[in-house]
Amino acid sequence: MDPAQQAQNRETFRQAVTNTLERRLFYIPSFKIYRGVAGLYDYGPPGCAVKSNVLAFWRQHFVLEENMLEVDCPCVTPEVVLKASGHVDKFTDLMVKDEKTGTCYRADHLLKDFCKDKLERDPNLPAEKAAEFRHVLAVLDDLSSEELGAKIKEYGITAPDTKNPLSAPYPFNLMFQTSIGPSGVSPGYMRPETAQGIFVNFKDLYYYNGNKLPFAAAQIGQAFRNEISPRQGLLRVREFTLAEIEHFVDPEDKSHPKFSDVANLEFLMFPREDQVAGRSARRINISEAVAQGVVNNETLGYFIGRVYLFLTHLGIDKDRLRFRQHLANEMAHYAADCWDAEIECSYGWIECVGIADRSAYDLRAHTDKSGVPLVAHEKFPEPREVEKLIIVPAKKELGLAFKGNQKMVVEALEAMGEKEAMEMKETLKSKGEAAFNVCTLDKVVTINKNMVSISKEIKKEHQRVFTPSVIEPSFGIGRIIYCLYEHSFNIRPSRDGDEQMNFFSFPPLVAPIKCTVFPLVQNQQYEEVARQIARSLTVYGISYKIDITGTSIGKRYARTDELGVPFAITVDSASSVTIRERDSKQQIRVNVDEVASVIKEVTDGQSTWGDVLWKYPTHSS
Amino acid sequence: MDPAQQAQNRETFRQAVTNTLERRLFYIPSFKIYRGVAGLYDYGPPGCAVKSNVLAFWRQHFVLEENMLEVDCPCVTPEVVLKASGHVDKFTDLMVKDEKTGTCYRADHLLKDFCKDKLERDPNLPAEKAAEFRHVLAVLDDLSSEELGAKIKEYGITAPDTKNPLSAPYPFNLMFQTSIGPSGVSPGYMRPETAQGIFVNFKDLYYYNGNKLPFAAAQIGQAFRNEISPRQGLLRVREFTLAEIEHFVDPEDKSHPKFSDVANLEFLMFPREDQVAGRSARRINISEAVAQGVVNNETLGYFIGRVYLFLTHLGIDKDRLRFRQHLANEMAHYAADCWDAEIECSYGWIECVGIADRSAYDLRAHTDKSGVPLVAHEKFPEPREVEKLIIVPAKKELGLAFKGNQKMVVEALEAMGEKEAMEMKETLKSKGEAAFNVCTLDKVVTINKNMVSISKEIKKEHQRVFTPSVIEPSFGIGRIIYCLYEHSFNIRPSRDGDEQMNFFSFPPLVAPIKCTVFPLVQNQQYEEVARQIARSLTVYGISYKIDITGTSIGKRYARTDELGVPFAITVDSASSVTIRERDSKQQIRVNVDEVASVIKEVTDGQSTWGDVLWKYPTHSS
Repeated sequence: MDPAQQAQNRETFRQAVTNTLERRLFYIPSFKIYRGVAGLYDYGPPGCAVKSNVLAFWRQHFVLEENMLEVDCPCVTPEVVLKASGHVDKFTDLMVKDEKTGTCYRADHLLKDFCKDKLERDPNLPAEKAAEFRHVLAVLDDLSSEELGAKIKEYGITAPDTKNPLSAPYPFNLMFQTSIGPSGVSPGYMRPETAQGIFVNFKDLYYYNGNKLPFAAAQIGQAFRNEISPRQGLLRVREFTLAEIEHFVDPEDKSHPKFSDVANLEFLMFPREDQVAGRSARRINISEAVAQGVVNNETLGYFIGRVYLFLTHLGIDKDRLRFRQHLANEMAHYAADCWDAEIECSYGWIECVGIADRSAYDLRAHTDKSGVPLVAHEKFPEPREVEKLIIVPAKKELGLAFKGNQKMVVEALEAMGEKEAMEMKETLKSKGEAAFNVCTLDKVVTINKNMVSISKEIKKEHQRVFTPSVIEPSFGIGRIIYCLYEHSFNIRPSRDGDEQMNFFSFPPLVAPIKCTVFPLVQNQQYEEVARQIARSLTVYGISYKIDITGTSIGKRYARTDELGVPFAITVDSASSVTIRERDSKQQIRVNVDEVASVIKEVTDGQSTWGDVLWKYPTHSS
Repeated sequence: MDPAQQAQNRETFRQAVTNTLERRLFYIPSFKIYRGVAGLYDYGPPGCAVKSNVLAFWRQHFVLEENMLEVDCPCVTPEVVLKASGHVDKFTDLMVKDEKTGTCYRADHLLKDFCKDKLERDPNLPAEKAAEFRHVLAVLDDLSSEELGAKIKEYGITAPDTKNPLSAPYPFNLMFQTSIGPSGVSPGYMRPETAQGIFVNFKDLYYYNGNKLPFAAAQIGQAFRNEISPRQGLLRVREFTLAEIEHFVDPEDKSHPKFSDVANLEFLMFPREDQVAGRSARRINISEAVAQGVVNNETLGYFIGRVYLFLTHLGIDKDRLRFRQHLANEMAHYAADCWDAEIECSYGWIECVGIADRSAYDLRAHTDKSGVPLVAHEKFPEPREVEKLIIVPAKKELGLAFKGNQKMVVEALEAMGEKEAMEMKETLKSKGEAAFNVCTLDKVVTINKNMVSISKEIKKEHQRVFTPSVIEPSFGIGRIIYCLYEHSFNIRPSRDGDEQMNFFSFPPLVAPIKCTVFPLVQNQQYEEVARQIARSLTVYGISYKIDITGTSIGKRYARTDELGVPFAITVDSASSVTIRERDSKQQIRVNVDEVASVIKEVTDGQSTWGDVLWKYPTHSS
């Protein structure tokens, strides 16, 4: 199939899915009666139920199973915290403005659209031009503000809505800003992620865990990004639910005690080398990936495996799920390794979970800014003798020599590494003075032997103090749910074959409603039986919908299939009823007083439909 | 006991509770390493677990049991929505500023503190002065900005921190303001309540419910209030979780089909008349309260009963829970009736749930602002003949007579009720003209018979179109949890009697962790059994904590009691173990392979401790 036809098919499929989702209130554009706000969506009743099922399973699969410490921190965050984390300075996108109307656009989006459009729609494009556009697309994320601006100018790109000229690109901070308290002098932001709330609590959480590593903290909550121009419907939104795990571990030991639980898993992985070499993702065994160093360490590998199990349990198609390693240029300088769980949907491969080894970066940043040491201790069974480098600057001498710059020179001397210090010691001994580059002064100064004493001493140490590494799996819940919708969406012909019927094949775990109850015909006796069944479902904590309209049973099945309800109970007698399974349309006949417990069994995972199918007589309508 | 001593005892008790809560990380002042932010708190691991248990029970008790439509809307809200709801104009507190430092205070708090202080601490206060202060306290909420300012001036109240003079009071809007999108021209706010997200979706939700009334929608989510100076610790905070229900009902029929389920409940109620007459709250049967019109209608009464059941199931002491009716001056002008569930704690009686009949106010406000009719329809089985009042203003005549005021006169004529209109018709007939008060012009004009035609016509109607009434139970989850902590907090002597031990007597439903697992002594066999039990607890979805430290078993019990863990499993053999109940300290002996199912039984509400106590041999240590 040619690419244009493929794109068309994807678009048609997406329209079918989103039409169904919006018509059945899985989601609603927020504040619709006021014509909405771009990038804000409500979860309507079935969507809200799916979300709460996904979150409940997340808690069971991660928090409970791993004994994680779950916390719940506010969204409103004072500036100092996000200054330390780097968000105030760096959480930006480059923006261009329509010079006449003031409308704002993301600079990289305009350039990307321009190049894609040329490649897809211009049949006469010379080969070297095509190569150039492909190159621009490949390096798009690496372009500086100036480079982006130059390309936009070179290609004559104008504002898409008006064709007016555009301003040069400039950074726009994506955080929603506000002010805390009445005075107006305490700036705050709506958090762009939940992780910072965990980092600032590290000291207390470590204590709560008995001062032991490793341990993980978790948080589910809202996060906010004031996108410049939200696109891709439910995938790029301005407010969303994150579920984040911060697993704190000794940087010298990143093994995981439960790694053997996932060691045999095999799934699509897309290592950095394969991407660079232009190969495709391939099935790799996770323990081999760790053993070969493709995945940096066991703990990272363990979480990749657990994320795979989580997503496939929810109903994500394992053939449209891959773990893609970040390229060197995608990764923050401090990160040891980073893998994204990407799910393929009509928009392409979408990052839904990021699993990063962030090393000690975050805890160090907050230690520096707050002055509170966020560190862990390892007590030695026996005191250990350790050779320590001792650098003692002579402050008086340095003061006389460098006056106002004394502090910077002292700090630079104290910051010397072992190799540099021992070299200086040698030079001072042999020549009496040494040249020394003080970065903070941006010049080379001369240090003489009276200005610093350098030595090595053997010291007894009772413990090791270190900043833990953080391994962070971070889940975009809304994106996972949207991909789940696409992977669960099916179309089949109606019984008489003259209509196309939609249905969502959600597993019972995530289905918004577990079953519907229908009296076959409108009569008081059947309705009373239906209500009796409804009461026992409530006792078991099973969500249901009762439909006593006089509509044909076929139409009622279709309605409930479209909501992804896995089971339908039809009351056609006072003593026994039928249970119909959504995907197979098979039916069994069950006594009224057993029906709730059968539904419980097949919805809470104790049994499958296959298990109960042979226990009860089948029913054909 | 004299009031001062009582206040002192309350303070001591509160200190004991909050010290325990903070030490065991039930809560943590947010961003503590940066010296925190007033009015922002984190839920630490046990607090977060309690919260999620409370919310899960809320979903079971309200959403599932009543088949409510749960939705999930964003916190970021555009201005137009909150303009319509009245929050932009009226969600304010009166503030005064220290004229030198700029520090802000709530004007009413300063006046309240001044009066209370005088009454409590000045033994020589003349009787008439005391009466005056008491009067000020009683009418505090009704004082206008000018009256508050005058009192502050009269009493010479200065800034509490500096004794500097204060500015006159002025309104401060309590919403956190922000800006949506990059242009800076779309103001938005962090929602002050979740209700508006439901109201704006009424049309879709009504359709989802098959265009049938009554139905209820529900939402759990964060809400934000930028308090001027947060006080009362965890009770008055700047960000909090609300759980709100909007029950839409035909204003002509506020009966409730399940009212009989709560009809026999009896609990402390505090009707308006009793408050005004200076009487105390008293036990009233809810069906009598509805029958006598003390509670406005059955639906309101039903929810009061359901809220009572919800709170007492969580562990709120029924003798420290009352339902207080709003006084006329507390209630919004449009409200039909309003009751607060108030819980007594060391801060006094605290509003934790508001249950209000808000009539048609909210839906009408959004209908007016958006132009989208948020209405319900009642189809008549047979068309009905209805007598309709027809008022047709003669715009031309009115224009000539009133020029620029024409529009106001036309609107006032059209807005006449039946009685007024028929009187005018009579007067116009007999005298040829009539005096007519136009409120919007604030004057009486003369209408002559050429200016308006008034008649009654018989029309056939097929349906009734009306704006539903809303009954809104709104739960402050954080406040309920804090009161629960106080009601569950106990102190008892240690076994040797020389220490005071704290424990929280949470019911299993809300306990943060359901059980702990202790090997009696550190040995590999016991630890293996402990891990085996832990695995089966995980399978059952039961949260546990395993404690393999070598600390004495008594100390380990004390630690877990202080977290409110209801059951402790001690491994003292490879075949059977003991289960200890927290409050009674009773122990039973259970086989290793049965223990998880026993814990499941007593924590999910199938059995009580009393039920299992006689089934298994008791154990005395």
